[in-house]
Amino acid sequence: MNDGVGTMKIGIIGGGSIGLLFAGYLAESHDVTIFTRTEHQANEINKKGITIEKKNNVKTFNVQAKISSSSVKEMDLLFIAVKQYILTDLLTQLKDIEKVGMICFLQNGMGHIEHIKQLQNATILVGIVEHGALKVDNTTVIHTGIGQTKIGTYKGNVPVLENIHTDFPIEFHDDWFDILSNKLVVNAVINPLTALYRVKNGELLENSYFHKQMKNVFRDIVSIIPTNEEKMWELVTTICKNTASNKSSMLRDIEEGRKTEIDAILGYILIEAKKRKRELTITQFLYDSLKGIEYKGG
Amino acid sequence: MNDGVGTMKIGIIGGGSIGLLFAGYLAESHDVTIFTRTEHQANEINKKGITIEKKNNVKTFNVQAKISSSSVKEMDLLFIAVKQYILTDLLTQLKDIEKVGMICFLQNGMGHIEHIKQLQNATILVGIVEHGALKVDNTTVIHTGIGQTKIGTYKGNVPVLENIHTDFPIEFHDDWFDILSNKLVVNAVINPLTALYRVKNGELLENSYFHKQMKNVFRDIVSIIPTNEEKMWELVTTICKNTASNKSSMLRDIEEGRKTEIDAILGYILIEAKKRKRELTITQFLYDSLKGIEYKGG
Repeated sequence: MNDGVGTMKIGIIGGGSIGLLFAGYLAESHDVTIFTRTEHQANEINKKGITIEKKNNVKTFNVQAKISSSSVKEMDLLFIAVKQYILTDLLTQLKDIEKVGMICFLQNGMGHIEHIKQLQNATILVGIVEHGALKVDNTTVIHTGIGQTKIGTYKGNVPVLENIHTDFPIEFHDDWFDILSNKLVVNAVINPLTALYRVKNGELLENSYFHKQMKNVFRDIVSIIPTNEEKMWELVTTICKNTASNKSSMLRDIEEGRKTEIDAILGYILIEAKKRKRELTITQFLYDSLKGIEYKGG
Repeated sequence: MNDGVGTMKIGIIGGGSIGLLFAGYLAESHDVTIFTRTEHQANEINKKGITIEKKNNVKTFNVQAKISSSSVKEMDLLFIAVKQYILTDLLTQLKDIEKVGMICFLQNGMGHIEHIKQLQNATILVGIVEHGALKVDNTTVIHTGIGQTKIGTYKGNVPVLENIHTDFPIEFHDDWFDILSNKLVVNAVINPLTALYRVKNGELLENSYFHKQMKNVFRDIVSIIPTNEEKMWELVTTICKNTASNKSSMLRDIEEGRKTEIDAILGYILIEAKKRKRELTITQFLYDSLKGIEYKGG
């Protein structure tokens, strides 16, 4: 087994936009295998590699691809880049995941922490991805916004990942809860409202009626997730301002008839609220509304 | 002045779909004047008459038209067929309205009762219109659904309206509050949710997540409007079922970028709730959301 210095055997489960982005960038200096759901995608990646498109720059990386059921246990470090609502099935089906020394979860929300608690891996990391990435086809992803990946250690040791591309910075933090809860609050306040109202992020700041609802949802969320409220509100509004002309991922999911991450985000908050015997009327209304819109979409 | 038997001088303020429908049908046996906002529409009606289109039947009626500021006081009976949000301005500008012996308000919601209280007319009626009507142009309205007009006496005497067309029945009821509050509750439960979710009425019954919200809103509304809850819920669901494939007027207003009747409907409920020092979290959220969507639309 590799000790984390120099080239590592890195596995990535998931052939979506984030999986492709990680596989491409990490393949530059590491021995990367991407595990896809379909054999078709694996074949295409083995044939064509993974292409990352940026503003003035297109680059293709050779990446080995396999379908998910095989050989994850040979990896030094395994990233799990699937949506949270797929995680339960994945962990049930892929028992070999626990044989990997170092595993890193990249889901939004915090619902997956319940699953993670039960895993036997020596090192468990949780991360959030702040890049903008758009999957174009089975082997191509557009890196629409250069951000960063923040990783915290849930259990075990911090890995040493060397020679990472400058457009793909990875930051390691001590406090995993802080990283995940910050992202969760931001997502909880911005995503469901923009998806319900079908507006870009900036409209939540510009439209006083919508802005009031942002505050209402924020109040619900921070009554459950312990945080510095003043700093957190500043973070939420800053991100909303910086992404003013973007559509949130949840709005895009709704527009394209896909399943959203509403369970990972507000669903988690509501479960935590229930444990504390608290009723969050507006959050519950928003959650039900998005579930209904999802249901309507198919 | 006419005593209500035989032909009456009937005035109608408002050249929208309901105004045109009333003017057309009543012109068959009465001396009707329609008061429009624009001189252009008045000229067109004076030239072409008012045309009512039905499934297998198109009929044009001669109607006199004037712009709103003139000669309402000569009428035996005056219908006010403008949206509630125009009413305040109308009553301020058109002082002669109080000189009409018999006046009938056809607004949705109940916010206009506050205005009505202060009027000096001998007879004041309030009505609700259950017809489907679509204004095509300044002189043409499609009678898309034959329903009825329910009128209650707020003050004074019930008029005798003779020779009314069979496709345009008018029912007189003792209890004006009952008529208006029934329509208000139905509108409050169906219109804002369908407009927010952008769905036809039937979807509120079919989609369990949306159906739950119908019940939530209903609970809010009947906590303010005194009613027989069981019967009222049956009325709401029956109307929702009977109009399953229709878009609510509020959804159409939103889709076409028009001002909605949200103030007349949920706005009124929230004012009444405030008087009782009650907070209606979901109704407030819905009200704000629709105001925000209206604002966004222009």
